[in-house]
Amino acid sequence: MQGPFIKHYMMTAGPTPLPPAVSGAMAEPILYHRAPAFVELYANCLEGLKRVFQTENDVLTFAASGSGGMESAVANLASAGKALVASCGKFGERWAELNEAFGADYVHHDFGWGNRVEPDELERVIAENGGDFKVVYTTLSETSTGVVNDVERLTQVAHDAGAIIVIDAVSGLGAIPIPQDEWGVDVIAAGSQKALMCPPGLGFASPNQKALDLAAGVQSRAYYFDWQKTLKGQRKDPPDSPFTPAVSIFMGLDVALRMIEDEGLENVFERHRQLGGAARAAVKGLGLELFGPEDERANVVTAFKVPEGVDGGKLPKLLRDRYNITANGGQNQLKGKILRIAHTGYFGAFDIILSVAAIEMALRDLGADVEVGAGVAAAQRVFQEAGVPAGAPA
Amino acid sequence: MQGPFIKHYMMTAGPTPLPPAVSGAMAEPILYHRAPAFVELYANCLEGLKRVFQTENDVLTFAASGSGGMESAVANLASAGKALVASCGKFGERWAELNEAFGADYVHHDFGWGNRVEPDELERVIAENGGDFKVVYTTLSETSTGVVNDVERLTQVAHDAGAIIVIDAVSGLGAIPIPQDEWGVDVIAAGSQKALMCPPGLGFASPNQKALDLAAGVQSRAYYFDWQKTLKGQRKDPPDSPFTPAVSIFMGLDVALRMIEDEGLENVFERHRQLGGAARAAVKGLGLELFGPEDERANVVTAFKVPEGVDGGKLPKLLRDRYNITANGGQNQLKGKILRIAHTGYFGAFDIILSVAAIEMALRDLGADVEVGAGVAAAQRVFQEAGVPAGAPA
Repeated sequence: MQGPFIKHYMMTAGPTPLPPAVSGAMAEPILYHRAPAFVELYANCLEGLKRVFQTENDVLTFAASGSGGMESAVANLASAGKALVASCGKFGERWAELNEAFGADYVHHDFGWGNRVEPDELERVIAENGGDFKVVYTTLSETSTGVVNDVERLTQVAHDAGAIIVIDAVSGLGAIPIPQDEWGVDVIAAGSQKALMCPPGLGFASPNQKALDLAAGVQSRAYYFDWQKTLKGQRKDPPDSPFTPAVSIFMGLDVALRMIEDEGLENVFERHRQLGGAARAAVKGLGLELFGPEDERANVVTAFKVPEGVDGGKLPKLLRDRYNITANGGQNQLKGKILRIAHTGYFGAFDIILSVAAIEMALRDLGADVEVGAGVAAAQRVFQEAGVPAGAPA
Repeated sequence: MQGPFIKHYMMTAGPTPLPPAVSGAMAEPILYHRAPAFVELYANCLEGLKRVFQTENDVLTFAASGSGGMESAVANLASAGKALVASCGKFGERWAELNEAFGADYVHHDFGWGNRVEPDELERVIAENGGDFKVVYTTLSETSTGVVNDVERLTQVAHDAGAIIVIDAVSGLGAIPIPQDEWGVDVIAAGSQKALMCPPGLGFASPNQKALDLAAGVQSRAYYFDWQKTLKGQRKDPPDSPFTPAVSIFMGLDVALRMIEDEGLENVFERHRQLGGAARAAVKGLGLELFGPEDERANVVTAFKVPEGVDGGKLPKLLRDRYNITANGGQNQLKGKILRIAHTGYFGAFDIILSVAAIEMALRDLGADVEVGAGVAAAQRVFQEAGVPAGAPA
């Protein structure tokens, strides 16, 4: 499927690279979803997911992409009352599209691509729009821009206004902290293909009792994504799924969750902190400008502005065709304007080094005035100062 | 994951066993969904699916189980007018549950578990209920009972009444004929985990223009399963997916579709005809009774009645624990009453032989008066008379 003699490097923000052990587990003979071997593995995964979500809630699983996890929230809550969508990029806007599709009563406030959803501003927006919101939808890590929002404070703002908060954490969960129960986040939606180091195909939602109660009180137009249906199955002993589960991805997830457990969730977060810090240092070391506010929490993906005079649309293509590196350019209105350095999931220090090295070379090819090696050296210094380089799990 | 020294045999109707070449492809490094290598593979799959569906329609793909393909039909058509659900088992009833969840105006007629949805009876039911149906939902192969409906004639009946027909072919597509365009079937819903020899996680729907027009004229409450959204992406050049696709399963599907192509779709159908014929012969050779009408079209899964005096609930467990064979018992009201011999997808002649051999031994263990070897011999004769034993694809 890939060129026979050329080594390719997948350096993307989602799907992210798979650990060989995860690929290996998925290549084992498939299991029947009601056979004890699968049921046990499934139960393990459900417990392991709770530890990554840092919650006692059931983490509901759907054979779907991360957007399916998001859809489950809107499908179950659309009739619960007025909603506020607080977006700052492509994925935040998906909350608005979902609310529109489900005929919800909602207000969409766009905080601007590259900006954060600032808690004080959210408070103002809520007040200006009557204050009577039941649900606030927003984003942990906006993959389209690299921005990470302060979910802890946004949760307080929503709660102070009497609303529950639903967070799209598809691209942040398991890479940066979002302790659901400690912060009181009502619903987290996520997917398998980012920090969870699995292929796309599993969507998650972890409603707390308050969110479940709110959904139970209203008409849902959900079947496949109905929370109660999946909850009922998962709470059986042994747990069961109302639809055929994505068996092979669960087989991979079981291994991936064990890897996260072995590394330790706090160490996983620390590794992502180092990777993000090194990526930002590399951008600055090259004399380039970060896209969005510099933020030590923004450790999911690092976006930088393509320098003036460089045809940014050519950058991802050149990286791929000449250097065999798959990287992410900008999406929608940011197409050709930014490049994103991925570092979520199965990434180690030297993935940043090689990504930055290739970016330097490709930028030179396109006529940019950057010093080859300057970004690499800046990243090296970050890793070296940290003492132990951030190694991906074995 | 499985016992270390015991060879297990997965003989189930879905998920079905995976060919090693499919598992191998999925263990390759994952591809970024916008990289040319994946886009090409994705485009190949979309074309290959059309050949298996025997249609010029776009086969819309969703990261979901087969039920997601079914849900897409109801989500897009629920507001199109009065619907008739014609069910004859567990999966047919799912159409009713879906119509209920989506608030559709529908009539549910249960033709009875183990019966076929007979075309003449369908005609009568339509007339008795006012005749003004816009959509008829029914099933190709009812996995819960092994019954296969005459979709060609059911389609005529629906069309004569001015309705479109939507067929759940999750368990039959690619095993038994359902030439969509030749028969004029308006929508086929299917999944990846049966005759397509892939893990669960891809749901399909193949609406024709009439179905798309009907859906386009009404309010849908779909986003993730919205036909237009996925259609628009798939019709781009190169094709694109509105949500992150289930990349690893597409990597497997690409190989599986090539295997089907290499074997030839007509040969695939012939193989399933032999497998089904042998399974029925084995049941009769053992002096047992088939569940449902004997039908030479019913080549997806063969159900038989557990003989009087045998505790049928123990049969699947004994097969698994003593003989290391995972087989399907009955579901819902058929629990303990039937056993199902699976033969869809990556199955060859000797899979039937070994399944029947184990069933004979387990039935003896449970005190049944069956002659060990009699079922096996009956199956052997079917294969031998066919000349070439039905080999699974290489």
